[in-house]
Amino acid sequence: MQNVIDHDATFDAGSVAASLIGARGADIADALDSYDADEAAAIVERLPLDEAVKAFDQPGIDDAEEIIALLPRELAVRLFDAMSADRTADLFRSLTEPARSELLAGVTPDLRTIVERLLGYPEASAGSIMTTEFVAVPADWTIAQVLHHIRMVERTRETVYSVYVTDPAKHTLVQAVTLRRLISGDPHANVLTAAPERKPVTIGPNDRREEAMRLISKYDLLAIPVIDAHGHLAGIVTVDDVIDAMIERQTTEVHRFGGVEAFDEDYLRIGFWAMIRKRAGWLCALFLSEMLTASAMQGFEGELEKAIVLTLFIPLIMSSGGNSGSQATSLVIRALALHEVSLRDWWRVALRELPTGLTLGAILGVIGIVRITLWQWLGLYDYGQHWSLVAVTVGAALVGIVTFGSFVGSMLPFGLRRLGFDPASASAPFVATLVDVTGLVIYFGVAAVILHGTLL
Amino acid sequence: MQNVIDHDATFDAGSVAASLIGARGADIADALDSYDADEAAAIVERLPLDEAVKAFDQPGIDDAEEIIALLPRELAVRLFDAMSADRTADLFRSLTEPARSELLAGVTPDLRTIVERLLGYPEASAGSIMTTEFVAVPADWTIAQVLHHIRMVERTRETVYSVYVTDPAKHTLVQAVTLRRLISGDPHANVLTAAPERKPVTIGPNDRREEAMRLISKYDLLAIPVIDAHGHLAGIVTVDDVIDAMIERQTTEVHRFGGVEAFDEDYLRIGFWAMIRKRAGWLCALFLSEMLTASAMQGFEGELEKAIVLTLFIPLIMSSGGNSGSQATSLVIRALALHEVSLRDWWRVALRELPTGLTLGAILGVIGIVRITLWQWLGLYDYGQHWSLVAVTVGAALVGIVTFGSFVGSMLPFGLRRLGFDPASASAPFVATLVDVTGLVIYFGVAAVILHGTLL
Repeated sequence: MQNVIDHDATFDAGSVAASLIGARGADIADALDSYDADEAAAIVERLPLDEAVKAFDQPGIDDAEEIIALLPRELAVRLFDAMSADRTADLFRSLTEPARSELLAGVTPDLRTIVERLLGYPEASAGSIMTTEFVAVPADWTIAQVLHHIRMVERTRETVYSVYVTDPAKHTLVQAVTLRRLISGDPHANVLTAAPERKPVTIGPNDRREEAMRLISKYDLLAIPVIDAHGHLAGIVTVDDVIDAMIERQTTEVHRFGGVEAFDEDYLRIGFWAMIRKRAGWLCALFLSEMLTASAMQGFEGELEKAIVLTLFIPLIMSSGGNSGSQATSLVIRALALHEVSLRDWWRVALRELPTGLTLGAILGVIGIVRITLWQWLGLYDYGQHWSLVAVTVGAALVGIVTFGSFVGSMLPFGLRRLGFDPASASAPFVATLVDVTGLVIYFGVAAVILHGTLL
Repeated sequence: MQNVIDHDATFDAGSVAASLIGARGADIADALDSYDADEAAAIVERLPLDEAVKAFDQPGIDDAEEIIALLPRELAVRLFDAMSADRTADLFRSLTEPARSELLAGVTPDLRTIVERLLGYPEASAGSIMTTEFVAVPADWTIAQVLHHIRMVERTRETVYSVYVTDPAKHTLVQAVTLRRLISGDPHANVLTAAPERKPVTIGPNDRREEAMRLISKYDLLAIPVIDAHGHLAGIVTVDDVIDAMIERQTTEVHRFGGVEAFDEDYLRIGFWAMIRKRAGWLCALFLSEMLTASAMQGFEGELEKAIVLTLFIPLIMSSGGNSGSQATSLVIRALALHEVSLRDWWRVALRELPTGLTLGAILGVIGIVRITLWQWLGLYDYGQHWSLVAVTVGAALVGIVTFGSFVGSMLPFGLRRLGFDPASASAPFVATLVDVTGLVIYFGVAAVILHGTLL
């Protein structure tokens, strides 16, 4: 971490570079991350090319684009040519002009074609995280031919453990065979003798990357082939890419659920104003919506003046609605992510949440009534002449608000998906805000019925 | 899903079993999951053993233990003997007596030894998710010998892509070589010629499984060797196990952050009362803590009676504290999970959150003041003679509460870890509850200062 190492004065790019030679790619990436972009670029310039390639093949360098943009163009181009194509495309995706066009013009025509194709896939799609460095062989080869081919190309392929067998004429995907079955097979037999009985699991380039994640984890695959509209093998998504995507996804999910716009930078590395921007947006939006509670309270001004005792329980009642809503939302977000429920199951979920909310509300309602009764009996506080009616009001309001909170909280992720948003955009603060105004209305509504003619 | 398929009357275990032959393990598991445990057991009895093994090797069967317990003992034992050892241990972990002891007595002595050892590792440790079915070869073998050995054992190993080279005398781990390097190497050369320069990344059996997850994803490994206290290779954690653990972990994290006790069952499959239990605990705990707000409000009864106008902004102010706290908590939970910050960085985080909270509070404070001023000017509501002082009170309270919320929210995960809990046990409702009482005290404290001699 930047702030742990003291770089000033003694910084010598040459000796740092020398100390990194032979380290693992992820560790070189970590080391580069501990320097400012211009220092990191100076170190990269002094690294042997293959060491720099190892580091930039990792998604771990936070300032990768800035470092690349600071390198001599010629070095950056050599780096891109040697890196894995999917990672190169990743970097181009975040490069800004003019570096982007200049560098793209410099790389080999083959790489340029691949990168332009990869950049054409929508963000967060399977196509956008796939690699084009896989092993494909025609279906008329023998196992010996395939193994020989693998030995030749092994160094330049992201994985050789899944080998894709294509139709020699139509170039469509026929089968996927694993290296473990190939080396156990008869060398003179056809490659397809090592294939499983079933067709491989595949995915389209425009499918969401979450789908690649789900299939790879469900079927314990090391890679999944990406098939384009013509049935051709466009690339493969490997388990590494999926793990990186899962970690990023998990961060996004937790940040969003906490009501923060998701970001990838390290907590301690993100700039102060960038941090404010990520948080102020949601915070202000929620604040503006929550202002409706002030308006609602203004509407109940008469009741408030007559029965000040009611105000004592406002925070308690509102937070219970928010809490039950936050529970339901977190459950449904995960159930949707894990495909335990689908969009059309919304009514099943509603039918589960209503009795669940009623039961949970009843439990809290009883606790609330007991609390008020106890305080009154023990003389800890005097809720007035109509204290028992106040207790019933609080209890009944809790049932209503917890049921409403559970219901709204469980429906919010469905609503967001229905509107085309990610269901995980639902956040605990978002649900609480949705529930708060209605919570107040329920509370004062219940009070109006129960306390009519006594306090109100 | 159980409720989608209509099982009654027409259920015929034999024909269901026949239809599943040749399907992928995960799909057989899904199919079994769509039946009640007794129906599923009847289907498993009629499946060929290797098909049943494929299904039970998946972590996807929710009722796996119940189904196993319903099978004839002899079949269950054959199933365990053929399954992967780590999955067998997993199932034994959740089996209840007497099935557990009866079945453990039935399996082969070798498997019993392995299962008993795996069961001895703490829950959620690397040892508890490792497999013992790996390929290990002595360091004096040639590459040809190793490849021959792999061909012999391939069918019974979870992975053959990482091969572990051990000291022939001491049986300690010397190196890890990959199958891709082995097949590209000279068959007559020593196996270590295919090894990388660096020692393999390893982990201890009692290390947390999150550490295996972090290392596998950081270094793009397919498996990580687990080394015991004597330097011996006890097992390996594969990327599949890590992905399963990540998904489970992610579910736990989202559930907990929503204030629900984590559970693994499908949302639509968990029983009604089980669901209530998972939710009622936290909900009641939070409700009881939140009761302190009622006590706090009782303490400010005098102020409330004099300045009813103050009550209008209670929900707005309290929710802002909760929201900013929830943001900070979600950020710090992820930063800790990703090793971006460590326990001893708490003061760096505190030093970041205080100015961030102040700035965010100031933004909301200004919006709050503008809102009150605008409503007053436009004649939408009359906040009374001292409306400008009320506006200043709300603005100043917001600065204090948002700063306090950000600070408490960011420190909560550190506090939990310090006390030995998982930092991800911090939830949005938990933070909101922590902040609420203090929020009220801050609000009324600020009011007492600013409104002294006017309203109060």
